[in-house]
Amino acid sequence: MLAQHAAPRGLLSVAPGGWQAAFDAEFGAWQAAHPGLPCLLAGMVGSRQGWAEAPYAACPAGLADIARQLRWLQPGCLAIVPGLSCENDGVPDVLRGEETQVFGALQALPDAGGAHTLVLPGTHSKWMQVDGGRVRGFRTHVTGETYALLRQQSILARMLPAADGDLDADAFDAGVARAQQPGGLLHHLFSVRTLALFDRATGAALASRLSGLLIGEELRAQALPPGQPVTVLGSAGLALRYQRALAAGGHPVRLAPDDATWQGLLAVARAAALVSEGTLSA
Amino acid sequence: MLAQHAAPRGLLSVAPGGWQAAFDAEFGAWQAAHPGLPCLLAGMVGSRQGWAEAPYAACPAGLADIARQLRWLQPGCLAIVPGLSCENDGVPDVLRGEETQVFGALQALPDAGGAHTLVLPGTHSKWMQVDGGRVRGFRTHVTGETYALLRQQSILARMLPAADGDLDADAFDAGVARAQQPGGLLHHLFSVRTLALFDRATGAALASRLSGLLIGEELRAQALPPGQPVTVLGSAGLALRYQRALAAGGHPVRLAPDDATWQGLLAVARAAALVSEGTLSA
Repeated sequence: MLAQHAAPRGLLSVAPGGWQAAFDAEFGAWQAAHPGLPCLLAGMVGSRQGWAEAPYAACPAGLADIARQLRWLQPGCLAIVPGLSCENDGVPDVLRGEETQVFGALQALPDAGGAHTLVLPGTHSKWMQVDGGRVRGFRTHVTGETYALLRQQSILARMLPAADGDLDADAFDAGVARAQQPGGLLHHLFSVRTLALFDRATGAALASRLSGLLIGEELRAQALPPGQPVTVLGSAGLALRYQRALAAGGHPVRLAPDDATWQGLLAVARAAALVSEGTLSA
Repeated sequence: MLAQHAAPRGLLSVAPGGWQAAFDAEFGAWQAAHPGLPCLLAGMVGSRQGWAEAPYAACPAGLADIARQLRWLQPGCLAIVPGLSCENDGVPDVLRGEETQVFGALQALPDAGGAHTLVLPGTHSKWMQVDGGRVRGFRTHVTGETYALLRQQSILARMLPAADGDLDADAFDAGVARAQQPGGLLHHLFSVRTLALFDRATGAALASRLSGLLIGEELRAQALPPGQPVTVLGSAGLALRYQRALAAGGHPVRLAPDDATWQGLLAVARAAALVSEGTLSA
């Protein structure tokens, strides 16, 4: 990594037709300093509402498939990395951006060519099965988004402090454990209200319990084989919560390195012969 | 039923200390026409934020328990029916108002003293076990509230028409069936987005699928014995959805009569000896 630049320019911040200008505003200086520098874009920039739609690569998909299906905006110079699609029992699933993170994380795993289960927690968590360097399939869970809605706008929110404080580890663990019991998520959620009604927990603890109930339900739904190792790829705070929940279920956890996205973009660039081993080709 | 009066005066519409005035405004004419007429109140009026807190009657609880624990506001004349509480594996659950509906519905069942499973669908659905005329226990599911949040404010909402139209029965049934498959609710919800992305369903159908996924999950979580009959007690539109979902699972369905609340209040009044069989005691 030679340089890094971030800006709050998400999908909804760019007007239709405004993508080239937004790109130039953010990265024009790099392009001017390094004429012909190859550039890869990943994530929602390749969605129907993005710069240009990059059709999903169908699973199973590896680096070679991704490289072959790059959506070129300027031939040999500027391309969008396609997202992935798969079918789960007749229902499609999709992701964009996480393919790059996973291929980057694989670079750092001791057995990159073996079978791996990875989770990328977030607004829409992705559970991915990788084998032989290819993504075999995945499932999206709307865990983070559901947490935000319940946390801020449901009747449960009245029981909780306005802002999340530090994680209450015991309350989080209790939520994870409860989610493994019969009753179902829609029932277990109500415990956030009733434990407050009976003064059996504080609001701060209940926010952590709510998080544990949702992450615990996501974990329950995986029906992982006992002892199945899982690689967690996410921001530190969220990764910690998944690590706790997985460890409670007896699953060895490996945390992916922070630079998975950049390693993934580099791996795609190499697979597309945009750069040679170690040095930029341009 | 001799007369009926309804007004949009929910819990949040009455300021602290304003309950007597609100009651007089709505029912003063009846009280004036029938001096000493006994009156029972049920629902959130007995909550901590209501007129006066009516402590929950602990399950198992029958009409006699409810009658004994009425919260009197004017002795012999005006009382609040207590809600119920129970414990599910160390976590409390509560309801207010549904106890009255269920005791009313029982009056209409051919085997009122037998074992019954009832569901009262709504913002917070209640699944209740009744035996020997007493509520043995129950579980709350935040199904309706979660539907409203996802329907109106999640990423799924972008795929859906602004208002619910008629139920798309096939799409609803597909959602119910999908909820019985492995994957978990938080995963299955995402299908509302992906089926739209791939143009495999219209927005109107997807709203019905979303409803089916949530009601199907609620039903899955009951783990009902095969063939277990269920009595559904709710508004016509919602009762129809539960009836479809239960029938698809092979469960005989009985619909409770519309006047369950009024029959329940009458049953409580009789149990409290406020009225004698057939005629008002006052």
